[in-house]
Amino acid sequence: MSLAQALFSPRAVALIGASGDAAKNTARPQRFLKKHGYRGRVLPVNPTRSEVLGERAWPSLAEAPGEIDHAFVMAAGDAVEQALEDCGRRKVPVMSVFSDGFADAGEEGAARQERLVARARALGVRLLGPNSMGVIDVPARLALTVNAVLEMDALPAGATSIVSHSGTMLGTLLSRGAARGLGFAKLVSLGNEADIGAGELVELLAEDADTRVIVLFLETVRDSARLAGAARRAHAAGKPVVAYKLGRSRLGAALARSHTGALAGEDPALDAFFRDCGIVRVDMLETLLEIAPLVSGRRPPDLKRAGRVAVVTTTGGGAASVVDRLGMLGIETVAPDKESPIIDLTMTATAEQYTAALDGLLASAGCDAVLAVVGSSAQFHPQLAVEPILRSKRSAKPLAVFLTPQAERSLGLLAAAGIAAFRTPEACADALAAYCAWRTPRERPSGTVQWPRVLPRRGRLDEAQGLELFASLGIAVAEHEIVAPPGAAHAIAYPVAAKALSPDILHKTDAGAVCLGIPDRAAFDREVRAMLERVPGARAVLVQRMESGLAEAIVGYRHDPLVGPLVLVGAGGVLAELYGDFALALAPVSEDEAAAMIESVKGLATVRGYRGLPRGDLRALAAVIAAVSRLALVPGQPVAEAEINPLIVKRHGVVAVDALVAMKE
Amino acid sequence: MSLAQALFSPRAVALIGASGDAAKNTARPQRFLKKHGYRGRVLPVNPTRSEVLGERAWPSLAEAPGEIDHAFVMAAGDAVEQALEDCGRRKVPVMSVFSDGFADAGEEGAARQERLVARARALGVRLLGPNSMGVIDVPARLALTVNAVLEMDALPAGATSIVSHSGTMLGTLLSRGAARGLGFAKLVSLGNEADIGAGELVELLAEDADTRVIVLFLETVRDSARLAGAARRAHAAGKPVVAYKLGRSRLGAALARSHTGALAGEDPALDAFFRDCGIVRVDMLETLLEIAPLVSGRRPPDLKRAGRVAVVTTTGGGAASVVDRLGMLGIETVAPDKESPIIDLTMTATAEQYTAALDGLLASAGCDAVLAVVGSSAQFHPQLAVEPILRSKRSAKPLAVFLTPQAERSLGLLAAAGIAAFRTPEACADALAAYCAWRTPRERPSGTVQWPRVLPRRGRLDEAQGLELFASLGIAVAEHEIVAPPGAAHAIAYPVAAKALSPDILHKTDAGAVCLGIPDRAAFDREVRAMLERVPGARAVLVQRMESGLAEAIVGYRHDPLVGPLVLVGAGGVLAELYGDFALALAPVSEDEAAAMIESVKGLATVRGYRGLPRGDLRALAAVIAAVSRLALVPGQPVAEAEINPLIVKRHGVVAVDALVAMKE
Repeated sequence: MSLAQALFSPRAVALIGASGDAAKNTARPQRFLKKHGYRGRVLPVNPTRSEVLGERAWPSLAEAPGEIDHAFVMAAGDAVEQALEDCGRRKVPVMSVFSDGFADAGEEGAARQERLVARARALGVRLLGPNSMGVIDVPARLALTVNAVLEMDALPAGATSIVSHSGTMLGTLLSRGAARGLGFAKLVSLGNEADIGAGELVELLAEDADTRVIVLFLETVRDSARLAGAARRAHAAGKPVVAYKLGRSRLGAALARSHTGALAGEDPALDAFFRDCGIVRVDMLETLLEIAPLVSGRRPPDLKRAGRVAVVTTTGGGAASVVDRLGMLGIETVAPDKESPIIDLTMTATAEQYTAALDGLLASAGCDAVLAVVGSSAQFHPQLAVEPILRSKRSAKPLAVFLTPQAERSLGLLAAAGIAAFRTPEACADALAAYCAWRTPRERPSGTVQWPRVLPRRGRLDEAQGLELFASLGIAVAEHEIVAPPGAAHAIAYPVAAKALSPDILHKTDAGAVCLGIPDRAAFDREVRAMLERVPGARAVLVQRMESGLAEAIVGYRHDPLVGPLVLVGAGGVLAELYGDFALALAPVSEDEAAAMIESVKGLATVRGYRGLPRGDLRALAAVIAAVSRLALVPGQPVAEAEINPLIVKRHGVVAVDALVAMKE
Repeated sequence: MSLAQALFSPRAVALIGASGDAAKNTARPQRFLKKHGYRGRVLPVNPTRSEVLGERAWPSLAEAPGEIDHAFVMAAGDAVEQALEDCGRRKVPVMSVFSDGFADAGEEGAARQERLVARARALGVRLLGPNSMGVIDVPARLALTVNAVLEMDALPAGATSIVSHSGTMLGTLLSRGAARGLGFAKLVSLGNEADIGAGELVELLAEDADTRVIVLFLETVRDSARLAGAARRAHAAGKPVVAYKLGRSRLGAALARSHTGALAGEDPALDAFFRDCGIVRVDMLETLLEIAPLVSGRRPPDLKRAGRVAVVTTTGGGAASVVDRLGMLGIETVAPDKESPIIDLTMTATAEQYTAALDGLLASAGCDAVLAVVGSSAQFHPQLAVEPILRSKRSAKPLAVFLTPQAERSLGLLAAAGIAAFRTPEACADALAAYCAWRTPRERPSGTVQWPRVLPRRGRLDEAQGLELFASLGIAVAEHEIVAPPGAAHAIAYPVAAKALSPDILHKTDAGAVCLGIPDRAAFDREVRAMLERVPGARAVLVQRMESGLAEAIVGYRHDPLVGPLVLVGAGGVLAELYGDFALALAPVSEDEAAAMIESVKGLATVRGYRGLPRGDLRALAAVIAAVSRLALVPGQPVAEAEINPLIVKRHGVVAVDALVAMKE
């Protein structure tokens, strides 16, 4: 029996800790299984009762008869561990755990969870949860969950499957979908994700015949490699994966050693990750529900420019509310072959005219998506109002519909026809922007980069070593010499910079270990002497030619604990940090991909020809980004963080003047 | 008869152009008036029928019997002008015009509208529209509108009144409110706003006994002075005014002469305007509907720091979706006297515990607002789920409730109790952020500023004149002299800057009229000669001391056509423009208000002590902002745009090195 079968279509389910009190949460799975027509055997397990809600009950799993495919555990305390032992003995292939008190409950709980998982592995039992609200499979009529929204009369069937860290939000999506005709196939509450994770579930759903769109409600990503692979499989199977992720307002990693580390916090890293493996990310909760028909059966548009949406409407104000939002999200409103960006068919247009306008736009090469807006009539004359939309030809180009009034029946008609319909202008614009940003999973450049033999593989490199590493990647570094003080000579032309070399110093400027713009030899001797008094541990002094150019950039690399190697480019100075103005991608990247990253950094407009300013050598900058990103190709990926800050961008060429490299511990 | 009475509670209504075909839009007002129980007389006017929908009809208004308080015109073409003449003759005090073909239809239509308004003034008839969908007064049972949502069975009564440029969106709000128990008093569709405008309606609503919250759906603001005065009256009457405004994605004014002009486009200007007169601005459409109970009966919190929201929830995921959004909006989540920022009362907490937690937070000084989140139970056990919230004590501090599932009945229970309830985490966070940003209408500094007698009052000032103007306001300007070329001497210490003086040059640098960092006399002579060849029209040369400091800022003034005098401060260079990073306020401002503006400019963090960088003289900067803003106090407000760019910010003091001043045409 496969995991998918045991999880979603078990022939028999044991309910461990099923309550006989119908008002209790722990009585719900039994009630819900019955209510929604589950056809397999249901075996309540309760140590104190021989009957639960009118069904025969068993004191323990050991005593329950017949083969059991799935055990759902609601019992508290040690009963969870006991249930696992029983599952092992009875060869129950999967156990879902609603009980909490594991990683959700501090360090002690986390240790308990670790023991539970280890034991489950030993016994060959797969675990969903703990702290999971369970599993729902609409085609299989399996409502194996404690979620109260299953009190609903009928489960809405459809081709969207949901995987969620939050059990409540799973219910939220189901409940809101049901109210407007959006249906589902499989819904899984991950809980603490101790064993079966989001990645493995996406793998199962990629192969699930009932699923056409996979929707994720995520609090974090625990196994990014597996999720990335699964997303690629889903893509290959023509199944879009859409994610909503919490934690966007969290601050960057507090313990980062470099700017890159501080900027590339968890959320920006995951954003780069989603883009990389073709997962569509939405901003708003309701979009997660409403976007499914928009992407279902479609492929990523892979746009290399701003998205363009054409609009047909019967209400100016209604259309403007979406168009305004699209503009804020960088999406253009266009009207192929028309003067106004919005085709306003007032109240007097015929249904045929409306359909013709839609068909024209859906067939036009001048736009990437079409928006139809329907006004007040959608409320009391749903058939009349949405008929012209229902009649439009299905197209590879997506059609989004925004209905201005309260209009469940119109929403239902559109949902039944597989047309994406939106309740709010904001979610509608969010979905269109997410569609326009959707990319095919990326193939990363491959190869191997040799680590320079002279450089250490642990600890922190000093600046000279850092410059050597970057030079070994083919990056131009400022002319420099290492001199042994005091009184050492050098051949660098004045003015020069002097920096005390010491891998112990993290912030050189703060430690007084940097002196810039030294005009001559006398000043050099004086400054170096003073510097070495401030930095007694310095092993030598780096003398460096002063460089200047059109602008400064920051280029960094970081091995992120969640998503792996990342490369970053931002404008120099404090712009990247103050304005969160940087581009981040999973490493390595090609030079073309690096060029696209540069385009998305606002602060680099100053070297892109903005306001007639001279252009910088963006090709050289892109080459440096690609080179730094190839640190991901060093066998063993030993680098934790690496950063050139600043990289001087000139009219011709770029040059690295400062290097920070920290190896993994 | 007052305008309010004629508009909202007319004793008799004439329907000019009423159709006898019940399926037509123009038959709706008659049907709706009857359906919703209007008790006054209804007089259909139709030149071709003696009976319309079973009621006696008249061929023209002239022939309709009795006193008529309000005429609603749906007839096309010249019939509108004819109807106005009839209204004048019959002394009908107000005429609402649904007919279009006026300012909504190009230049010709605009001219037609101007003639219509002029004639209405001459006749003493007040005009609503044209292109207005009409008026609804729920207590008066007046449904004088063509909006199809009035097909609803019963109008939901409440204390929120709406004024909208879009008739459709008026219907949208009414329809969506009705579906969840949110009620209304008066609703007005402004249409083209040719005569009766948003400001006058807010005045009427400020005095309306049925109205407690005034909601605006705006496409623009046409009479800002009147709206500002009306908003102040509403504030004095304890009635919050909330606005949603379209056009946020529109670009800045294309014809601006200065950076200030380009940055302070229509939307930023209106944003400053709303803040100034105490109007609460919301970002999302649904917030406009949902925020009313949150602000009703409350006063602006006038916070001088980030807002703080305390959270009680029965669902971690549901609370996180709001808290995450609040974080993105700069609102802190706090828990007075608790370790975790969220009070998570799991499924097992009692109703008493929930109410006690809410009451504790509502009474605490540690937060500005309270958020309660309810999970799945809100759908099928509404009374049970919201009971603990309904029982909480009413407080001056607002309470917002987010319900995770589809839960109309719970929404209805909360609405009936006057508690703000939200369908989406995003609108919930938007409303809380809007509340926290709400300010008491501001009193602007008064006084008179003398215009220097030597300076012209028209055209553009050259740079020396500009510097003189700023110096006259008490602003330190860089030491300078005007010399007559060629070969003129000056007493400014080298290095100096030289600028060709000509009021004709708008962008001096582009025109080659600026030369910076001239090291000595020989270079000066050479550069000035070359410059005058490039700028033959120059009347003289300004020689200026080179200044340097910690950072550059831009301080500007603009007389905005919509909202009047504005003052702006941003970081120098291209930061203000690239990142839209500036603060804008209605001028004049006090030095304290200017200091608050500085705080909100991210790019000025570099002189606020960021990362150990030296602090700039922010008090001097604030003084300059306040001084520039006092250009609004020059009699006649002759300045169109004025700008110091850059203003050099030093450790001690600030100094203006460049001046641009353009007078009104």
